[in-house]
Amino acid sequence: MRNNPLSLLDTHSKVAILSHVSPDGDSLGSLIALGLAMKKLCQGVYIFRNDLFPEKYKFLPGYQQVEAYREDCQQDFDFCFVLDCGDEKRLGYSEVILKRSKKIINIDHHISNTAFGDINLLDTEASSTCEIVYNLLKDFGLALDVDIATCLYTGIATDTGNFVYDNTTAYTHQVAAELMGFHIDLHKISYHLYQNKPLNSVRFLAHVLNHMEIGFDGKVAIIAIPEELLKKFNVLSSDVDGVINYARDIQGIEIAILLKESAGGEVKVGFRAKKDIDVSLLAGKFGGGGHKKASGATIEGTIEEVRKKLEEQITMDLGW
Amino acid sequence: MRNNPLSLLDTHSKVAILSHVSPDGDSLGSLIALGLAMKKLCQGVYIFRNDLFPEKYKFLPGYQQVEAYREDCQQDFDFCFVLDCGDEKRLGYSEVILKRSKKIINIDHHISNTAFGDINLLDTEASSTCEIVYNLLKDFGLALDVDIATCLYTGIATDTGNFVYDNTTAYTHQVAAELMGFHIDLHKISYHLYQNKPLNSVRFLAHVLNHMEIGFDGKVAIIAIPEELLKKFNVLSSDVDGVINYARDIQGIEIAILLKESAGGEVKVGFRAKKDIDVSLLAGKFGGGGHKKASGATIEGTIEEVRKKLEEQITMDLGW
Repeated sequence: MRNNPLSLLDTHSKVAILSHVSPDGDSLGSLIALGLAMKKLCQGVYIFRNDLFPEKYKFLPGYQQVEAYREDCQQDFDFCFVLDCGDEKRLGYSEVILKRSKKIINIDHHISNTAFGDINLLDTEASSTCEIVYNLLKDFGLALDVDIATCLYTGIATDTGNFVYDNTTAYTHQVAAELMGFHIDLHKISYHLYQNKPLNSVRFLAHVLNHMEIGFDGKVAIIAIPEELLKKFNVLSSDVDGVINYARDIQGIEIAILLKESAGGEVKVGFRAKKDIDVSLLAGKFGGGGHKKASGATIEGTIEEVRKKLEEQITMDLGW
Repeated sequence: MRNNPLSLLDTHSKVAILSHVSPDGDSLGSLIALGLAMKKLCQGVYIFRNDLFPEKYKFLPGYQQVEAYREDCQQDFDFCFVLDCGDEKRLGYSEVILKRSKKIINIDHHISNTAFGDINLLDTEASSTCEIVYNLLKDFGLALDVDIATCLYTGIATDTGNFVYDNTTAYTHQVAAELMGFHIDLHKISYHLYQNKPLNSVRFLAHVLNHMEIGFDGKVAIIAIPEELLKKFNVLSSDVDGVINYARDIQGIEIAILLKESAGGEVKVGFRAKKDIDVSLLAGKFGGGGHKKASGATIEGTIEEVRKKLEEQITMDLGW
């Protein structure tokens, strides 16, 4: 690799590592993996979080080394590595660290990345940011260990939906094979990711699947979640967002829609498509955006009003 | 590989290929993959099924070449390859083919395999029978193609729960990488395996998760399915068996139990364990058996009576 950004570092470098708000397996996995690796290279490495560290991912080795950035600490950095983050706004309150860093290194696999870094290492063909970090470390000749491999495997597995989504390539499996060679505990990873679901989130899933509505001759599934339902089941935002995939995965469904009532007379809308429909266009009609198969928008109105607007738009755009 | 059984064949060999009843991704994938490969070696290759071919797997290339065995056909075979099948009884009505074959080649990865073949190629370390078939074909130098690779990948993916279960190894990922190198259509495979669920099976899942009972201080989940529920939702047996995994995957649950009422005053019971509990012992107390983490038994009585028996046994054995 020409210009491997790790070659910029020396033992005295002060480095910040950041990722996006609402962290997921790939952002946390790449954040910690790169952090643990860099700590082998230089003394002043700080791994920052923007949000509470999700309970689900506290099995990741080294998670205790992830710290909250305190705005009053007046710390400056030689380098700031930003991982898995399409633009600066998604950094939340740690965006301020960018201004305190001499050089920003932006490492990501999202096609929407705005190339906001001084150095931009963008690989939209990579399954995940963890796959890019793996390439970086291997290219630099930095020895991996079981902790780093566990974090990288977790990010790759979660961002590919366990090697199911279209971003999975032969190379993704090859990297997974090499990471397993470091004797990671797959049983432990699987347990924490998939076998440790809170009972209330499972009851919540059952409730919404029971009340899901199917329309447009079986082509559209709509799940509506009034605010009081979240309180009733006491579920996390991540539990809510996941249910839309169950609607998408039904035979014949081409568009799945999640309507989440939020404060201020707005509804947060999630769209998922399975085959040929481009739901980023649909979201775009309401000021939102995203990918072809997964997009979102925030729309004013009650759940009923928003549902009606969406149904009219679908009829108009698709002739259904 | 010493004694690769493929070296027994010549162009005039008559070969039958069989697998177990209640077919799954690994049995069908290995059956068809080996069949398609052998058809490159000899003229008389017959791929037999014992059951209706499941709708879900009709995307497998070459599935039309799988035929029902007709007892009146009086056909004899030089070789019978039996795949993914622990013992002869699991062959259903095609068990008769064994008697009409000069040599039985038994290829499997189940630890419970009774070694009923003349040649037994048993590898309990392999993730799946498809992984063993891959090794056989590669060792023999037989060129794979996209159809064979699609079948093998499907079997490996389904038998490992998408690379999640403990049978997944570094080598499993390596094989998956090599199979993807044949340009298989992962999107199509994923769509048919995971994104094409009948609506009634999703509504059924919602219903049973809603009515699931939790006992023993949150350590045991019980799902009871009376016969009339199956009729009400019009679901397949495979839809029923899958729901137990949702119960197992709940935080704190150590044993998940599925009670399925069946004709004749019996209840078919499925057990799943997550960590240290060995549910094959529990099943054994009721004349059943299986693996440490997945077992089953058939118990006389109504659902209520069977539940009571099980609860008493759990208290006795585990002190809960």
